[in-house]
Amino acid sequence: PDRLMISPYIPCCRYVSKAAAKTQMEFEYDGPSMKTEVPGPRSKELTKQLGEIQNVGAINFFCNYEESRGNYLVDVDGNRMLDVYTQISSIPIGYNHPSLIKVMSNPNNMSAFVNRPALGIMPPENFPEKLAESLLSVAPSGMSRVQTMACGSCSNENAYKAMFIWYRNKERGHNIPSDEDVSSCMINQSPGCPDFSILSFMGGFHGRTMGCLATTHSKAIHKLDVPSFDWPIAPFPKLKYPLEEFTRENAQEEARCLEEVEDLIVQWRQKGRPVAGIVIEPIQAEGGDNHATPDFFKKLRNIAHKHGSAFHVDEVQTGGGATGKFWAHEHWGMDDPADIVSFSKKMLTGGFYHKDELQAYRIFNTWMGDPSKNLFLAEVLNVIRRENLLEEVTRSGKTLLQGLYQLQDQYPNLLSSARGQGTFCAIDIRDDATRNSILLKARDKGVLLGGCGDRSIRFRPALVFKEYHVHMFLNVFSDVLAEHN
Amino acid sequence: PDRLMISPYIPCCRYVSKAAAKTQMEFEYDGPSMKTEVPGPRSKELTKQLGEIQNVGAINFFCNYEESRGNYLVDVDGNRMLDVYTQISSIPIGYNHPSLIKVMSNPNNMSAFVNRPALGIMPPENFPEKLAESLLSVAPSGMSRVQTMACGSCSNENAYKAMFIWYRNKERGHNIPSDEDVSSCMINQSPGCPDFSILSFMGGFHGRTMGCLATTHSKAIHKLDVPSFDWPIAPFPKLKYPLEEFTRENAQEEARCLEEVEDLIVQWRQKGRPVAGIVIEPIQAEGGDNHATPDFFKKLRNIAHKHGSAFHVDEVQTGGGATGKFWAHEHWGMDDPADIVSFSKKMLTGGFYHKDELQAYRIFNTWMGDPSKNLFLAEVLNVIRRENLLEEVTRSGKTLLQGLYQLQDQYPNLLSSARGQGTFCAIDIRDDATRNSILLKARDKGVLLGGCGDRSIRFRPALVFKEYHVHMFLNVFSDVLAEHN
Repeated sequence: PDRLMISPYIPCCRYVSKAAAKTQMEFEYDGPSMKTEVPGPRSKELTKQLGEIQNVGAINFFCNYEESRGNYLVDVDGNRMLDVYTQISSIPIGYNHPSLIKVMSNPNNMSAFVNRPALGIMPPENFPEKLAESLLSVAPSGMSRVQTMACGSCSNENAYKAMFIWYRNKERGHNIPSDEDVSSCMINQSPGCPDFSILSFMGGFHGRTMGCLATTHSKAIHKLDVPSFDWPIAPFPKLKYPLEEFTRENAQEEARCLEEVEDLIVQWRQKGRPVAGIVIEPIQAEGGDNHATPDFFKKLRNIAHKHGSAFHVDEVQTGGGATGKFWAHEHWGMDDPADIVSFSKKMLTGGFYHKDELQAYRIFNTWMGDPSKNLFLAEVLNVIRRENLLEEVTRSGKTLLQGLYQLQDQYPNLLSSARGQGTFCAIDIRDDATRNSILLKARDKGVLLGGCGDRSIRFRPALVFKEYHVHMFLNVFSDVLAEHN
Repeated sequence: PDRLMISPYIPCCRYVSKAAAKTQMEFEYDGPSMKTEVPGPRSKELTKQLGEIQNVGAINFFCNYEESRGNYLVDVDGNRMLDVYTQISSIPIGYNHPSLIKVMSNPNNMSAFVNRPALGIMPPENFPEKLAESLLSVAPSGMSRVQTMACGSCSNENAYKAMFIWYRNKERGHNIPSDEDVSSCMINQSPGCPDFSILSFMGGFHGRTMGCLATTHSKAIHKLDVPSFDWPIAPFPKLKYPLEEFTRENAQEEARCLEEVEDLIVQWRQKGRPVAGIVIEPIQAEGGDNHATPDFFKKLRNIAHKHGSAFHVDEVQTGGGATGKFWAHEHWGMDDPADIVSFSKKMLTGGFYHKDELQAYRIFNTWMGDPSKNLFLAEVLNVIRRENLLEEVTRSGKTLLQGLYQLQDQYPNLLSSARGQGTFCAIDIRDDATRNSILLKARDKGVLLGGCGDRSIRFRPALVFKEYHVHMFLNVFSDVLAEHN
């Protein structure tokens, strides 16, 4: 099939695109179609306009979202690209999915968009029901509580706060602050503002607000010139891929890192900056798609338990199905994987799940999320279930990784370390310059990719990326690689 | 008139409410109507349900937003209240305004809701145009650049980062980091993560993420148990109201605070933690509606200039028209009021304006705001202009403040320090317990109010709060006060 059938019973998608209305059965385009270089003249003109208003250093091009569909992003110059990057991994089921258009067109949903409430004080009537339908229906093992937030950084910031508060209450033996706590906190001083720390990993990315940034160590450009906290930073295992071929070396490397984690926890306790929480991504994404084994995460979880630190799994990029399980940490096979799991991006709303004992009392702000995003998320989850998208992702992911292995065999001087779970795959390129050239050449041929780490390419398609999309991508990628050999 | 005519030409508001469809000219309700105590049985049931999912310590009651209109918030038990708090001051033109419903119903806008882009890399075609129509059309004096963000905290966090980066570049003489900067920042150490500080004011509130929280000093409950930065905190003037009756004492108090600001800047420079920026609200809101004079702000601005610190005016709560000017800082009458002005709440999107030299390079995250909010904001601004809402606010505000003065004369043991600009008014109550009792009694009588500071009540109606709403409010308030005398 060269067209993607999103669903056999799309009632109407008249707002999607005039072209799509031709027949309700044909939703997606049949391939990339390039009209100009990218960015094209219209994108350049708009970039200049926007440059009068804000920094455009990171702008790639401008998009025609009305005409974009499924896995295809259309730009303002009429170029149609197979999107394997999906707005930094934040579009769960492709562009203009008919089910999401329906959410918008339902008059009963109108009020959620027009009247954004202060959720912490005056939630709408359907808020508990919508949370149950959306976030709770995919809650990680052992967690029945969830707090929504506006974005990934706010989610992690508030998760850290919840861990600090929990840790302090544990230290106190109760949750009643002393007079000294109350007075000292008002002037940023201990004991009211205690010298607690969060242990993070080199190569990790957890956001760019100041608390998050103190735990982010993927690129200097994120952190430069911003004051930070003296918090411990552990090495993340540097493993050899495929993991199953290097089990002994990898196990040694993981043991080395875990030992360092324990050393740091002890050191920082001795310094008077105890580690209230450990934060980690199941796959370090921005930092270069660095994997570790389930054994590593199990042992790390045990270290957290042993030292009384909370364990926070940041699933902002890995969550939402791209690894073939809804949460990447499910691959670890643990009943009690974490104390806190944060999310955003494909979940459309930010937020975090937490255990009962990390009850997020005193976690509050004006909006605390946006209930209109919960409506979309509930529908995304329906689509994932109805269309068995996690199975599709597993199938597409296998084909993708297999293809990357083959290309790696074919171009051993160019490619290495193909790796992935589901479609959440990556491969290393000889060097940074070649990587960037490949990204641009692939785009010229109608395939949108993203980089990560120093010299990796990450694949971040939507969950509706099927096997035939994989083949289409591999064909283009293969052509581009041939040009770089 | 006992009904609010929002606009003489509402074409259709069929999604607003069945009742409203009776006649297109009658949009709002004619007064509060209470059916049960608040929270009523349905609210209590829903609070119990939500309590299984998240902390409900701050929940007041659940709302029926579909049935809420204009200045009236309807709860799930059918109670209809005159809303003088508006979701912590975040509803600009009342509930279900027909113009906003129209934005939602316009098929051309559909894609902005369904396809949330990564604005920093692939903005939609109409993004520069919508920014021009919305945020730029109300840009503060001297500022033509604006960056959107998802919420108030993220806005301030990123504004602080922009100030740090600007300050560091100034210190360096250029914007190219040294190798040492690059390597040290990755491990949270200086010089890459420099020991810069932001000077804030006691009583200020700038958000609850960790950077913001280090500048927030309104209530201990916001700050307790969260690590912070050693940053300078200046006293905010404690003035006597009405300001014009105490000009001499107030000028002395302001001079004292300004002197302290300069001392702190010098001290912190000597400590090796130079003040990169000063952040202040034009009226300290959460901290108790504390005002200062234009003279104070002018002198503070000069101190910032003199010491080379950026000057950040936080208009998250004061911005958007409630003071009778679009930005509260416009009351200062300065051509060059600030280097950065942040906003959120009534602006529907977070973000900050900044001067060219605070070019926010390296300010980036996945979403960087939400273009669907810009669509709503553009329409809110149209309504404000079309209905002359700033004039209305000035008129209603005068009537409100006059009424508060009268009540204060009538109840001198109960009330003091009535103050305000536009409808952004407040009054102090004898003590905390009485304040809280007044808030609850007013709610029982169908008027929703909020507290701030230790014992103040703040008035935060929407911009469509007319003089007859003021009279309605004053009548209820007067009855409640009589019960507390």
